[in-house]
This record gives sequence, C-alpha cells and structure tokens, in this order.
Amino acid sequence: MRNKPTLHTSVSPALLHLYDLSNSVVVIIDVFRATSTIASALYNGAKCIIPVDSVPKAIEISKRIGGIAAGERDGMIAEGLQHGNSPLEYTRDFIENKTLVLTTTNGTRLLHMALEKNADTIISGSFPNISAVCDFLLAEKKNVVLGCAGWKDRFNLEDTLFAGGVIHRLKKHFTIHCDSSLMADTIYAKHKNNLVRFAPKLTHYHRLVERFGLIEDIKFCLTNDVANVLVIYNEGKLVAG
Amino acid sequence: MRNKPTLHTSVSPALLHLYDLSNSVVVIIDVFRATSTIASALYNGAKCIIPVDSVPKAIEISKRIGGIAAGERDGMIAEGLQHGNSPLEYTRDFIENKTLVLTTTNGTRLLHMALEKNADTIISGSFPNISAVCDFLLAEKKNVVLGCAGWKDRFNLEDTLFAGGVIHRLKKHFTIHCDSSLMADTIYAKHKNNLVRFAPKLTHYHRLVERFGLIEDIKFCLTNDVANVLVIYNEGKLVAG
Repeated sequence: MRNKPTLHTSVSPALLHLYDLSNSVVVIIDVFRATSTIASALYNGAKCIIPVDSVPKAIEISKRIGGIAAGERDGMIAEGLQHGNSPLEYTRDFIENKTLVLTTTNGTRLLHMALEKNADTIISGSFPNISAVCDFLLAEKKNVVLGCAGWKDRFNLEDTLFAGGVIHRLKKHFTIHCDSSLMADTIYAKHKNNLVRFAPKLTHYHRLVERFGLIEDIKFCLTNDVANVLVIYNEGKLVAG
Repeated sequence: MRNKPTLHTSVSPALLHLYDLSNSVVVIIDVFRATSTIASALYNGAKCIIPVDSVPKAIEISKRIGGIAAGERDGMIAEGLQHGNSPLEYTRDFIENKTLVLTTTNGTRLLHMALEKNADTIISGSFPNISAVCDFLLAEKKNVVLGCAGWKDRFNLEDTLFAGGVIHRLKKHFTIHCDSSLMADTIYAKHKNNLVRFAPKLTHYHRLVERFGLIEDIKFCLTNDVANVLVIYNEGKLVAG
C-alpha cells in the first residue's frame, strides 16, 4: 500500500524554510485579505493576477500591459494606487477579462518565498475557495505545506483557522505528524460554526474593522465557497485552475 | 489608573526577535525537558545551573569549577557526557549543593537569544514550577514575553500548552492583544484536565517515549508544582529566586 502523503502547517513565513517545499503543493494563506481577494477576482472573471512585491512594480507592470494596479500596505490602499485589497471591490462588472497587478503586505511576500524555495506547485487558499483547495489537494496526492502569511511574521489566528479547516476535511488522507497542524485542527473545530462571531477576538479584526470599518470584508473572508475557484500559480501569474 | 502590562507569546525562537524584550520579563519554556529539568535540579538543592551552548564548553567549565556536565542532543545524552536532560536524574541525593553545567537542543539556545536581545529579566518556566512563575510575573507587574523553545524552530504543542497555562491564570492582570496567546489559552483550556492523556498526540512524545521509553519524564514534565521554585537568570547562572 502506498504511504499517505504528508501534511504540515507553517504558522509564519519566518518558519517556511523548515519544510521541504520542493516535493510539495504549497498553499498560500492570507485570509485577511489577499488570498480571499484573489479568489474573488478570479471567480468574477479576471484574466489573471500578477502578484508583485512593490507598489512601483505594480504601477509599472499595469501600465505596460493595460492591467489594474492594486494593493495595500498595513491594511489601507497603498499610496499611489487607486484600488486596494478588498474582495468586494472586484465585482464581475469591474474585473472581468482584466489583469490585476496586486501587491500586499504579507501574502505576496510569502508567495515569493515559496517560489524561491522551489515549491513544486503553489496554490492560493481562503475560505471563499476552500472546497476548490481541498478537491485539488485530494486529487494531487502530493505532500502538502499549508503556509500561513501571518502579520509581519507574527502568528495569526485567521490563517491558522483556514489551515485547520483544510486539515479538518482532509486529515484521513494524509500523514500528519506536525504539532501546528494538530493545533490548527483543534482551534478550527472549536470555532467552525461561529467564525464571524469569533472574529472580534482576532488582532487583525481591530485593524480592519475598528480602524477601517471593513466588517463586510471580514464576513466575506470567513464564508466558505463564495468564490469557489481553484487559484494556481503559473509562470508569474495566478490563474483559475 | 495605571495601564496593565502587556503579555505576548512567541511560539518559536525564530519569532522571538518580533517582540520587545528590553522592557520585559522573558519566560524561557522548554517543557520536554530542559526547563522542567532545571526546575527539578534547583528544587532539589543544586547550587546553580550554568546553561551553555555546546558539549565541549559544558565539559570544560564543569572541570574547571568541579561541576556536573550534562546535556542532550536530539533527546539523548550528548556524546561525551554522562548525564542527560531527565528531570528524574537530578534527585536531592545527587545534585544538592552541586553546580550543573547544562547544554540542550532548544532551551539553552533560546535563553542565549533572549540575552542577546537584552531581555530585562529572564526566568525559566515549566509545569513543575508554574505557580512560582505566575507569582513572580504577577508581582513584577512588567511586560511579559512567553518564549516557547519549540523543536529546532518548529512550533510545538507542549510549550504552547504551558504558555496557555500561564495565560489562563494571569490574563485578567495583563493586556493581551496577541493571537498566539489567545491560541495558547484556547488549547490549554481544552486539555488542562488531561495533559498526560493528551501527550501521545504530541510529535515530541514519539521522540521521547517510543524511541527512548521516557514516559515517567513526560508525566513529571506535565505535572504542576512538583518542583515549585522560581528559576531566575543572573550573571551567567540560573538560580533559585
């Protein structure tokens, strides 16, 4: 009998190097809000998303290809850009058939780290596309690393909750010998039926809701399958799989 | 009214630099087994413990001062040493009035990191001395960073459980705006009444029990206040406070 593939959870970008990515599907997780926004844009018909690591690069590339430059720094639309990191901004009317050039505080950086560490395959995960993520991981039968973007390298609960959601659905199909995965599964099991009610306890909630009033964003980002599309990285672009 | 001091939890040595240690009491946590062993030795009358980062240094210093060189690498007594990292090894008969020169895989390294980052005060925490730790933190009224040693920079649950135990007792007295502390408190609340029964789920349990048969060590390391002494770092030495 073939051994089950392994599954590990990295709770911060600063720990990603501890895991072997070269044989793994790496799931980039930045629940508030990069990976939720990416799922939303692709679900609504965006041609693709080009993740870049700086605002000037976002502006330069978007001008060159006729795309839309967008991004945030510290939760706000980045200076020099007109569009931010809200999943609700990318409606079908606005984004269909367009290319989004996106830069974010944590998610983009983690994706570039996974690339540098030669990840076999990179996908992007969020509650809005959790079923697509799980279906893909199940079908691939490869090792999995769930990579939480956190906040400036700190542990955060919303990314861990999503990792736990994936583990909750898939754990029978993987060998999981990883304390952070066990922790994520435990935390998810406790809060799975009340994610939105639990949200005010998260440090990130205060940043997004109390400072910027983004409660609708939070609700979207914590709802399963409202933008259920597989998001896969291919030659510099995130595309619908 | 004076603001409450803050409390943060660092779930890996690789994240310790994210926290301001210079105004904080840092609690070094290496439940399996360094900080449990340190509490045990001091509780049983050891004069002091000198934590060092290499086996040759442990041998050299112990010879010079007439101390006992001890330590482990990857869970076993380190090559060249006669004494390891088991809390049960340091009975009163053996250790009273002696100096222990100790090197361990994770705990010693974390302590030296906290020193380099100018921690205001460093203490060592484990379930065997949890009440002494909490009493000290409560009396000091300073900011607190709970520093989990983990396993080679990976997150581990036993250190997080101890952090959760401290948070559970002290949270009313601190401002806690920290997702890892909230996570630790949640995990501890779930398992506090059955720590030893939960232990077989921990990756470290397999290392210690299935490979080395150290079930009695595990039980000791998960029992509150069986070596209830404050352990404080002072000029190169860990001493009873």
